[in-house]
Parts: sequence; structure tokens; C-alpha cells
Amino acid sequence: MNRILEDVIRKNKPMVERITSENTMGYVVSDNAASAVAESSFDNTSALAIIKHMNGALVGMAQSVIRDLDPTNKLCYLRVATRKFEYLIAPEEVFTITVVQ
Amino acid sequence: MNRILEDVIRKNKPMVERITSENTMGYVVSDNAASAVAESSFDNTSALAIIKHMNGALVGMAQSVIRDLDPTNKLCYLRVATRKFEYLIAPEEVFTITVVQ
Repeated sequence: MNRILEDVIRKNKPMVERITSENTMGYVVSDNAASAVAESSFDNTSALAIIKHMNGALVGMAQSVIRDLDPTNKLCYLRVATRKFEYLIAPEEVFTITVVQ
Repeated sequence: MNRILEDVIRKNKPMVERITSENTMGYVVSDNAASAVAESSFDNTSALAIIKHMNGALVGMAQSVIRDLDPTNKLCYLRVATRKFEYLIAPEEVFTITVVQ
């Protein structure tokens, strides 16, 4: 796993704990280069499913759709409300954070 | 165009005007069955581009991703924040509303 990512996760541990202690179902932090789980509160199978579907398929599609509509524009943040949960997806340069609430 | 959709649009005209008079860039209401523009504040080319990319590709992908993760779940609402605008997409049974702000 990426060294920078490991550092960031370690530094933000207290903040993550504060946020997830409220009404969050869980979170997944994934490494973009490897599409691997970097840190998650879910079990490995669920985390990998979320990464594959949300971070892989949906974020890629959203990025290309936005670029098609306006080539100078860029995706910042994606919020998907479903009947059961809400997925909050923040794609960054090196990693992608997905929170389920 | 669908008769029900026409009725809904006519009834909600004052509300739409109130909301769009604030800081909205524009909106598109599209007919799901025909993928056609039902009502829009954009010109026809931009409205069709938004419908094709957002309502066609992205909403379809989001629905299938959510169904893949949990077959009993359903997409309610999609919010895409980009560097320039924010797209708010509400997919309904007969029509899809997209607001750009």
C-alpha cells in the first residue's frame, strides 16, 4: 500500500473515529492505482464490492460524463441517495473515500 | 409528449419560477420513455446533451451499481458536484428532473 496514503490515514484516525461514531454505517478508503482496500470498517468482501462498483464503475462514468458535457470541468464529489443508505464519494488524486450513511 | 407530464409541468410552473429565480443555472425535465426534452430553460442542444449523458448514461449506471450492491435497494437521488456547477438529478417513474446550479 502507498506510503503517503498510510500516513494520511494514521494522521486522521481521531477525526475518522469521531465522525463514524455518530450515524455512519461505515466507510471505505481505496487506493486508486491498485483499486485495493486501504482502510475500511466493512468486511473485505463488502469493501471490495463497494470499491469495484462505486469507485470503479460509477466514478469513472461520472468523470467521463462531466468531461463530455464540458471538457474544462472536473468531478469533485458524488452523493448517491438510495432508499436504504446514502453513499458519499470523494475521489481524490491518490485515493477515494466512500462513506455509507 | 406525455399528457400526465404536461399536466405536472403546468401545475408546478409558479414553484419552478420561484426556485429558478434564485441561484440556479437552469433545469431540464425529460421524458424517460422517449429520452426527449419535456421542458427546459437551456437551449435544445445543451438540454439534449444533459439528458443523453446525465439521465441516460450516469443514472442508468448508478441504478445498476446500486442494484448490484444490494438487489433490494433503489436509487432515489443523485448529486454530482463538479468544479464549476452542481448537478442535482431526481429520477422518477415517468420523468427525470435535472437541475444545474
